[in-house]
Amino acid sequence: MLCKEEISDWLKALQGRICLALEQADGAGKFSIEEWERSEGGGGITRILQNGKVIEKGGVNFSAVSGKLPENISNALQLPPSDFFATGVSIVIHPHNPHVPIIHMNVRYFETMPNTINDKPSYWFGGGIDLTPHYIVNDDARFFHMALKTTCDKFDADYYPKFKKWADDYFFITHRNETRGVGGIFFDRLSDSEKHTKESRFEFLKAVGETFAPVYTELIKHNHKKPFTEKEKQWQLIRRGRYVEFNLVYDKGTKFGLDTNGRIESILMSLPALASWQYNHTPEPGSAEEKTTSLLKKGVEWA
Amino acid sequence: MLCKEEISDWLKALQGRICLALEQADGAGKFSIEEWERSEGGGGITRILQNGKVIEKGGVNFSAVSGKLPENISNALQLPPSDFFATGVSIVIHPHNPHVPIIHMNVRYFETMPNTINDKPSYWFGGGIDLTPHYIVNDDARFFHMALKTTCDKFDADYYPKFKKWADDYFFITHRNETRGVGGIFFDRLSDSEKHTKESRFEFLKAVGETFAPVYTELIKHNHKKPFTEKEKQWQLIRRGRYVEFNLVYDKGTKFGLDTNGRIESILMSLPALASWQYNHTPEPGSAEEKTTSLLKKGVEWA
Repeated sequence: MLCKEEISDWLKALQGRICLALEQADGAGKFSIEEWERSEGGGGITRILQNGKVIEKGGVNFSAVSGKLPENISNALQLPPSDFFATGVSIVIHPHNPHVPIIHMNVRYFETMPNTINDKPSYWFGGGIDLTPHYIVNDDARFFHMALKTTCDKFDADYYPKFKKWADDYFFITHRNETRGVGGIFFDRLSDSEKHTKESRFEFLKAVGETFAPVYTELIKHNHKKPFTEKEKQWQLIRRGRYVEFNLVYDKGTKFGLDTNGRIESILMSLPALASWQYNHTPEPGSAEEKTTSLLKKGVEWA
Repeated sequence: MLCKEEISDWLKALQGRICLALEQADGAGKFSIEEWERSEGGGGITRILQNGKVIEKGGVNFSAVSGKLPENISNALQLPPSDFFATGVSIVIHPHNPHVPIIHMNVRYFETMPNTINDKPSYWFGGGIDLTPHYIVNDDARFFHMALKTTCDKFDADYYPKFKKWADDYFFITHRNETRGVGGIFFDRLSDSEKHTKESRFEFLKAVGETFAPVYTELIKHNHKKPFTEKEKQWQLIRRGRYVEFNLVYDKGTKFGLDTNGRIESILMSLPALASWQYNHTPEPGSAEEKTTSLLKKGVEWA
């Protein structure tokens, strides 16, 4: 039987491999290492790269926390009072060059151990990878989605269409009526089912985790030498502002972290080094900025 | 009997007077004017000044909206289903110079007209002014709080201590365990009471509205010519990042606007032209930045 330690050990090792791959792709920057403990139980390793050659600010976090599930969380999840264990790797990378997209990955495992004998323990896997180009390039978006689809299809032909739609719905900035980027895959509460065991769910999670580095380093290689203008840099800062809006207003991982007395600097590593808000900024008709805006919607079939 | 039109007319005129005073203090920038309508009822006038001499980005918004109260709002306010009317002036000013503080003012009036004859109509006034210096200067904070206290004391000796504490509690960034700035006054649900009539509550609101321009233009005059370093500018961008965190995570006015299908660009005018997040940024011991951080707490008696 797959135990939680096996899962968190694998995730911790994944963090190390991804940091190495990103350092190689950057060519100059190195990830710092901070180990931290959570007073209520568990802790994590926060790894940050700032001011690299390609990466302006990026974080690759591992955590494995445990303790009493806070009441607001158990209510939100419709769970009985219980102890919990949560482990995961979270990544957000903000590059210097506006032609390199922002990327986000999260792979996580959650389990509860109820306080009374009548309530069953439960567990689930969740996560996903999604891409936020400052400028949407069709070939890159297709390459990204094809890679995710290939990973998904190895496990279940229903995974990609279902998780792609889930990402469209999740990474949506309601008050702007736009998606955060070109989406990707998002899944949650993956547990035992007729088709899947805990073991096969974990194998899928591992495959998602291993998809991240080759895909993103390819997108870096392909784009980081492209020249850019001051206007393109300004647009990048505005798109980053939208990223901040999503993470602070809607993102459940951020809320979970703030509500469980998580380590603030690790949770908010997702926020960019620099972001901008211009009043009523509207892209010029026919511009690359307008093309990007027009594609920030649900239901675009990239793969 | 004081009617809602009288209140909204006065607030609209206040908007004009404050924009004029700020343009004079800036010496170069002019406020744009956008009138907008809300499809469910009412509308507003958004006035924005960007790239002035003193003001980098500032907004002075007037709105008077009405319609059916959305269910999520009536539940949150513990009110029966009803029509509502809300009018107010909201201001946020982000200056260029890190030695000039950010300021925020809101003065508002809210009333409901229940759908059934058994529920009483209700109204209240709310608002306040609070200051967020990038660098806290004791004399400026004292001057600011003394001006608010003087305004409050003309109406009720209990106002300042009560509303000052309310601001400390409201403008608090829980996940950072710090106040947004040096506070000010905050009040809500001011209605008829033993001591006060609707008319005297409105007179107080007017006095708060009239306190804004002389106080802030004095703070501008006193500070906007001070030289500043690149390091001080960086610190300003980090403090602005905290301002963004407060507004997107905690601010009830922002939430109300997003939940009532408000005009997004008007609501989010409070966000700065440029903000920064540095991982684990910690001020040097003994620095002016550290002094400021040490004063970002509740209960400092400035007046």
